[in-house]
Amino acid sequence: MVDREAYFISKLQDSGVTLKLDNDGVLLNDYVYAMDLFCEGVHFLRKYFSYYTIAKKSMLVNISDIFAMGVKPKYAMLGVSFAGDMTLKDINDFQKGIIDICRQYNIKIIGGDTIRDDRLSIAITMFGKAESKIIKRTNFRAGDILFFSGSLGKVKKDMNFLYRGYKINKNSKFYTPKLNSKFIFEILPFVRGGMDISDGLYYELNRISKLNNIRFKFYKKIDKNIALSGEEYEFLFSISSKNIRKLYLIANKNRVKITRLAKILPGRQRFYCLPHHK
Amino acid sequence: MVDREAYFISKLQDSGVTLKLDNDGVLLNDYVYAMDLFCEGVHFLRKYFSYYTIAKKSMLVNISDIFAMGVKPKYAMLGVSFAGDMTLKDINDFQKGIIDICRQYNIKIIGGDTIRDDRLSIAITMFGKAESKIIKRTNFRAGDILFFSGSLGKVKKDMNFLYRGYKINKNSKFYTPKLNSKFIFEILPFVRGGMDISDGLYYELNRISKLNNIRFKFYKKIDKNIALSGEEYEFLFSISSKNIRKLYLIANKNRVKITRLAKILPGRQRFYCLPHHK
Repeated sequence: MVDREAYFISKLQDSGVTLKLDNDGVLLNDYVYAMDLFCEGVHFLRKYFSYYTIAKKSMLVNISDIFAMGVKPKYAMLGVSFAGDMTLKDINDFQKGIIDICRQYNIKIIGGDTIRDDRLSIAITMFGKAESKIIKRTNFRAGDILFFSGSLGKVKKDMNFLYRGYKINKNSKFYTPKLNSKFIFEILPFVRGGMDISDGLYYELNRISKLNNIRFKFYKKIDKNIALSGEEYEFLFSISSKNIRKLYLIANKNRVKITRLAKILPGRQRFYCLPHHK
Repeated sequence: MVDREAYFISKLQDSGVTLKLDNDGVLLNDYVYAMDLFCEGVHFLRKYFSYYTIAKKSMLVNISDIFAMGVKPKYAMLGVSFAGDMTLKDINDFQKGIIDICRQYNIKIIGGDTIRDDRLSIAITMFGKAESKIIKRTNFRAGDILFFSGSLGKVKKDMNFLYRGYKINKNSKFYTPKLNSKFIFEILPFVRGGMDISDGLYYELNRISKLNNIRFKFYKKIDKNIALSGEEYEFLFSISSKNIRKLYLIANKNRVKITRLAKILPGRQRFYCLPHHK
């Protein structure tokens, strides 16, 4: 079966009406822009989330895209369709989540649209000024070393728990992605390729393999639970081997765990995996 | 009952995390940004629209916001959730609508997000560079004369026809809003206040009355069908009386019908009407 979303995007690209859409966000006139949808039934179910947490996560997944390009998000446009059964208290919890994230990351809401529908969904466009260099998905080079931040696998585990009816820790990354922006900005001067892991490690590796004509020589076998866990929002990045020491110093200083995943080689590689959302 | 959308927006505004959200779009660093949602079940029903027309209208309502501020839209971010039952042909018709509008108005798609859901909805963020002056809703002044472009009322009529099971003309503004951008840009040097009529004339008059502390002395009685017809996307604007001759010359040249609606007076006025979408 043809993937209809990919078909749509390729049609637009072939027509010439788009810019190149390779990265988490797009660089235009010194600003990096990203847009994400966060929809009930597709990205979340209301029975597993508080409204406060939905609001926060809808913002964080977008912020993650901008951080992954080495840029601080500064402005957001917010499109919200509220579910008709949401009470004033629900709306209140929701707005608190938006406001708390705006304050934490110093983001201004510059506009948007609100409607009432029969479910809750959020569309966010975010942008921020590119200061010096930006990080790209198209910059993973053979010879460099591939790393990721944090731990992978726990989000998938937590989701499975939740779907089987168990409670999970309120601090789960599934509820509130942890964004290591300080770490990213400190390694920015020597990062080569970079992106956030939103659809699972294997899925992202397929993307960068295709974009850069590279394959991967892993330092150790990757567990399936690590490779297929989506919504981790950890940072997948590469550096030249000469910067490894510097990288570990910065990671230690920021208490960010990093994993040396693979040596990048020329070639192509494809891992079997499904997209995280369908 | 409290309007929950208004409550949400006022909460955000009170918190200080927003810019002033008075206009169709927002001016930031020389660019004007606008975001609109266009959702199945709220803004359109698939049984009344072709996919081509849905795509076009989703873009046009957004373009209208930017034109109404006297600015040419140049870039768009496109968030689409496709309905699971859409065929490849449907997707094809849809992308053609997007591409045709991009070409007609010289707009580049710079990014976005696509998902699959059980219905079709579109979130668009659009922006363009403000060249000289921008048109604002907050610039309707007592003493000036209020006009609107085109004819009002037909969209409401067409919608009622459609909902009663009749066919309407394919060229109906309900399907494809007519945007008089050339006219707007020619009168830009002397326009005072301006906005597009998306929620019906009375609804917009309430907005500008509140924003500017003004009321209206109408030149003739306004028919209810004219006053309450939404989605017209005509241009509501004011000028100083000394520019009336110039205005009519430009309108004639562009073959744009204009109606001299009212003299603007200081005060407040409120018309009874419901928002167009709920």
